[in-house]
Amino acid sequence: MLSMLKRIIIGAPLKSTELGEQKLNKKKALAILSSDALSSVAYGPEQILLVLVTISAVAFWYSMPIAVGVLFLLTALILSYRQIIYAYPHGGGAYVVSKENLGENAGLVAGGSLLVDYILTVAVSVSAGTDAITSAFPGLHDHNVIIACLLVVFITILNLRGITESASILAYPVYLFVLALFILIGVGIYKIITGDVSSDLHAPIGTPVAGISLFLLLRAFASGSSALTGVEAISNAIPNFKEPGPRNAVRTLMAMGLLLAILFSGIVFLAYYFGIAPKHEETVVSQIAAETFGRNFMYYFIQGTTAMILVLAANTGYSAFPLLAFNLAKDKYIARMFTMRGDRLGYSNGIITLGVTSILLIIIFKGQTEQLIPLYAVGVFIPFTLSQTGMLVKWLREKPKGWAVKLAINLTGALISFLVMMMFFITKFSQVWAVLIFLPLIVLGFHQIKKHYVAVGDQLRLTTCEPIKPIEGNVIIVPVAGMTHVVENSLNYAKSLSADQIIAVYVSFERVDEKIFEDKWNKWQPDIRLVTLQSYYRSIIQPLTKFIDTVEKKASESNYRVTVLIPQFIPKKSWHNILHNQSSILIRTFLLYKRNVIVTTVPYHLKK
Amino acid sequence: MLSMLKRIIIGAPLKSTELGEQKLNKKKALAILSSDALSSVAYGPEQILLVLVTISAVAFWYSMPIAVGVLFLLTALILSYRQIIYAYPHGGGAYVVSKENLGENAGLVAGGSLLVDYILTVAVSVSAGTDAITSAFPGLHDHNVIIACLLVVFITILNLRGITESASILAYPVYLFVLALFILIGVGIYKIITGDVSSDLHAPIGTPVAGISLFLLLRAFASGSSALTGVEAISNAIPNFKEPGPRNAVRTLMAMGLLLAILFSGIVFLAYYFGIAPKHEETVVSQIAAETFGRNFMYYFIQGTTAMILVLAANTGYSAFPLLAFNLAKDKYIARMFTMRGDRLGYSNGIITLGVTSILLIIIFKGQTEQLIPLYAVGVFIPFTLSQTGMLVKWLREKPKGWAVKLAINLTGALISFLVMMMFFITKFSQVWAVLIFLPLIVLGFHQIKKHYVAVGDQLRLTTCEPIKPIEGNVIIVPVAGMTHVVENSLNYAKSLSADQIIAVYVSFERVDEKIFEDKWNKWQPDIRLVTLQSYYRSIIQPLTKFIDTVEKKASESNYRVTVLIPQFIPKKSWHNILHNQSSILIRTFLLYKRNVIVTTVPYHLKK
Repeated sequence: MLSMLKRIIIGAPLKSTELGEQKLNKKKALAILSSDALSSVAYGPEQILLVLVTISAVAFWYSMPIAVGVLFLLTALILSYRQIIYAYPHGGGAYVVSKENLGENAGLVAGGSLLVDYILTVAVSVSAGTDAITSAFPGLHDHNVIIACLLVVFITILNLRGITESASILAYPVYLFVLALFILIGVGIYKIITGDVSSDLHAPIGTPVAGISLFLLLRAFASGSSALTGVEAISNAIPNFKEPGPRNAVRTLMAMGLLLAILFSGIVFLAYYFGIAPKHEETVVSQIAAETFGRNFMYYFIQGTTAMILVLAANTGYSAFPLLAFNLAKDKYIARMFTMRGDRLGYSNGIITLGVTSILLIIIFKGQTEQLIPLYAVGVFIPFTLSQTGMLVKWLREKPKGWAVKLAINLTGALISFLVMMMFFITKFSQVWAVLIFLPLIVLGFHQIKKHYVAVGDQLRLTTCEPIKPIEGNVIIVPVAGMTHVVENSLNYAKSLSADQIIAVYVSFERVDEKIFEDKWNKWQPDIRLVTLQSYYRSIIQPLTKFIDTVEKKASESNYRVTVLIPQFIPKKSWHNILHNQSSILIRTFLLYKRNVIVTTVPYHLKK
Repeated sequence: MLSMLKRIIIGAPLKSTELGEQKLNKKKALAILSSDALSSVAYGPEQILLVLVTISAVAFWYSMPIAVGVLFLLTALILSYRQIIYAYPHGGGAYVVSKENLGENAGLVAGGSLLVDYILTVAVSVSAGTDAITSAFPGLHDHNVIIACLLVVFITILNLRGITESASILAYPVYLFVLALFILIGVGIYKIITGDVSSDLHAPIGTPVAGISLFLLLRAFASGSSALTGVEAISNAIPNFKEPGPRNAVRTLMAMGLLLAILFSGIVFLAYYFGIAPKHEETVVSQIAAETFGRNFMYYFIQGTTAMILVLAANTGYSAFPLLAFNLAKDKYIARMFTMRGDRLGYSNGIITLGVTSILLIIIFKGQTEQLIPLYAVGVFIPFTLSQTGMLVKWLREKPKGWAVKLAINLTGALISFLVMMMFFITKFSQVWAVLIFLPLIVLGFHQIKKHYVAVGDQLRLTTCEPIKPIEGNVIIVPVAGMTHVVENSLNYAKSLSADQIIAVYVSFERVDEKIFEDKWNKWQPDIRLVTLQSYYRSIIQPLTKFIDTVEKKASESNYRVTVLIPQFIPKKSWHNILHNQSSILIRTFLLYKRNVIVTTVPYHLKK
């Protein structure tokens, strides 16, 4: 039943050998891996204006040089990640690069903050997309949280079905969004060129502004660079690309960088030229669109595709999180289950974990996850800084051909990333302090887990651990609840094992009972020793465990092994199980984990 | 850890032999078993006036003859239950009486409706008590649901600790409530006698009222008789009384009847004499108290004890539900676990089930469980009618000394109960129709469960079931995940069992892997046959099960038994378990329930 439902939802399992066919071509990869980065165009320019408006509308012209700064940072990041892709063709991004060049802890800081960041990405983007949807249909506004959760479930299922299939569905909205913004920018500039727009709407570049400070400009710059979150996704996902992976990845990266640069500068320019001020109730993109087209079909087309790409931005997290988790798990820093491929060859445990945790975040923050944006931006720039510093060290150490240029690129990237990160800490400390507490805890957790795995490995390896004592003989204990066919079945099995001793144990709640039982037993199974235990507190486990301990102590002295053989009848229908005391399961679990005995269950299947 | 917490909350376990000491004396029994009945005085009179007010205030004098009718019904019920207690000294109430005299289905209808009713009692009374509390402290009003749930948890814990202990705590509020109402009625009547109250406040008895109908009067009577819910509790709980149980129970019943009669008629009389009309925002009892004392200390004392007894009324459910569940479980109509005594000798499974289900009801109805009152009243009068009809049949069949009087008493009781029940169905059908659907479903469920238990018994009994085939030999299958100490340990054990064949099974995900593994294995364990299975879909269970099926089929032909021996390492700390794939548990559960093989787990305890 359950497995049928699973098959309907995520599709029939794929063979491991079909892995290659699940890989992405460049067009699909661009859609699937860049929706996060591209969608930030919808809010990045606004973030800059929101800081500048605290001075005055005259200060808006500063958005132009700031945008140039952001473009510069973008170029540095793209060039830098281009180098990373070629240097690390098996993917891994910030975690792998930092770990290999800066050491374990730097890698773990990068990995830990990215891991949390992808969860934040999903929660924040889906909440933002839901807001856009419910703004269009105000009747749904009370159901924000449930809508957001359903969207996460939907994206999770798409990803469990496999990346190629989800890519096909997700590619359309992304390309439609790009198309919509291209038209918007094109028509906007055409109107400006044809003189349709008055040049009085904005203060000319260079107008002196009272009260402006370097601190404020840097803060605006930091806010604007939140538009760059997501550019690292491609470098993490090289193994998902069709061969040749690195080359295809670099081409996709360059295409994404170009698109991002055009859209970002276009929007900033139009916002400046149209003299648009950020409003609480309407986004900057919406204002530009209304200014350019009026509220006609094109306006709603732009708004619609924007809402869709915000939801889809979550999908970037789904491509990157499972791969990062795989890398961390392979290195034993998180649970091994993240290395396993599911029915459809995706790392399904990572996908499900991401879905569940982001739904939890959405529920905890009641769908108002905007408060998490600064946290999320910091979580991106920490690994940016680390990975580029890592590349720096790599070039210095290896000194390959043309290393000076490469060094210069990564040095620039590292410096700017570091500055942006510090800007966040200095200007928005009240919103990002949590990073300073959680990140060390996460890294500590990683170390604990690795320590455990290493210890287990040492204990299991044949070459390193002490030899096992030989088994001289076996004692079998059979707890019996009565004289039934189930017990008879178990006793027959016990006899067939040629053990040295078989003891049946009966736990009695009342003294009278005990005597009658013993007499009956001796007639029924005269050759099997019966031990009756009195339970004053109506517990079966307690007296049984005490008895087993005594036997086990004696047995281990002469290297005998103790087997507890539990008779269990299995009802025909699974709902019948609730009608029977599950004491056999309790006893089995308790003995297995708490005592050094072997536990055998002898099933007796009922026929009706 | 958990067991320590349990010990702190519900106390150290008691020996089975301490059972006698846990029993109730009359004073405690009165408090613990009659809080439901007595608390209904707080709303019963009001229910009558609420019906009469639909005609006019002049009609209020009809409350006096109606009250006489209710007192008559009360007397009939009390006398009737007195006879039941003597006739059924082991308790059981409506379920046992109906089953023995009217047949299985009548008993199950009575038992089923009472079982649901006790859950409703708890939910309704606790919600009502919570309303009273949050009316006093309006700041708490938004937290109604959580307060009600906490109160249920509190009462559940008290009952898990054992009846005597909870009786001590619960006795005070009950007696304080009785005291408070006695003072109220006494002072009220004193004021009337001394002429302090004008006799113009009410219409004299017998004043003609326009528009009155028999239907309306019967409806008022039915509503008023909701004050009688809970009188059956004592007859269910005779086994909880100190010896001699039946005599003590009857004395307690008579005392409760007397108290209930005095309080009920006192309140109805004062309400009539003071000319009090039911108000939406103030209860009738509150109005009488305000009229009598003004809003001084006594007023708040009455309101406070009323709130407390409403909460405690829930406790009646806690005394009756587990005993009824025990009786039903003993007869195999519900799961056997309800027959087991917990650490403190109470039927803890019944207590916990009652607590959990009533919390669910409170949450589902968001604390507004008043809508459930008619349902609850019907659920009481169905078993009332059945049990008294049952007594009727008993007297007719047995004809003991003085049977005519006994017959008359039960006949009256049965007739009135039946009438009241029909009144509810006729006048409040929209609120009680659910009974007609759920009750048959519950009875059907009872039968299904009994059928299952009987079938299981037949299959287990040595005398009735077919002989088991003798075991000719054993085949042991050991699934191995690698060459480790854990596997070595399991293989050593397998060898010590002198099985006829030992097969190690390795599930490989990749072809290359397979060959290497086989070569290594043959060097390591040349005497144990290794079978390698290819898994195309990355599942271990699927190929393993297929292999086991083949072996099992062959083995069963020559009466060999197949044992699957699962090597499992047990981490030192329990949190480590999440770091390891629980495939061994999955395999074990799957094989045990789905296949006819014996499953053995060989633990290897890690030391660090």
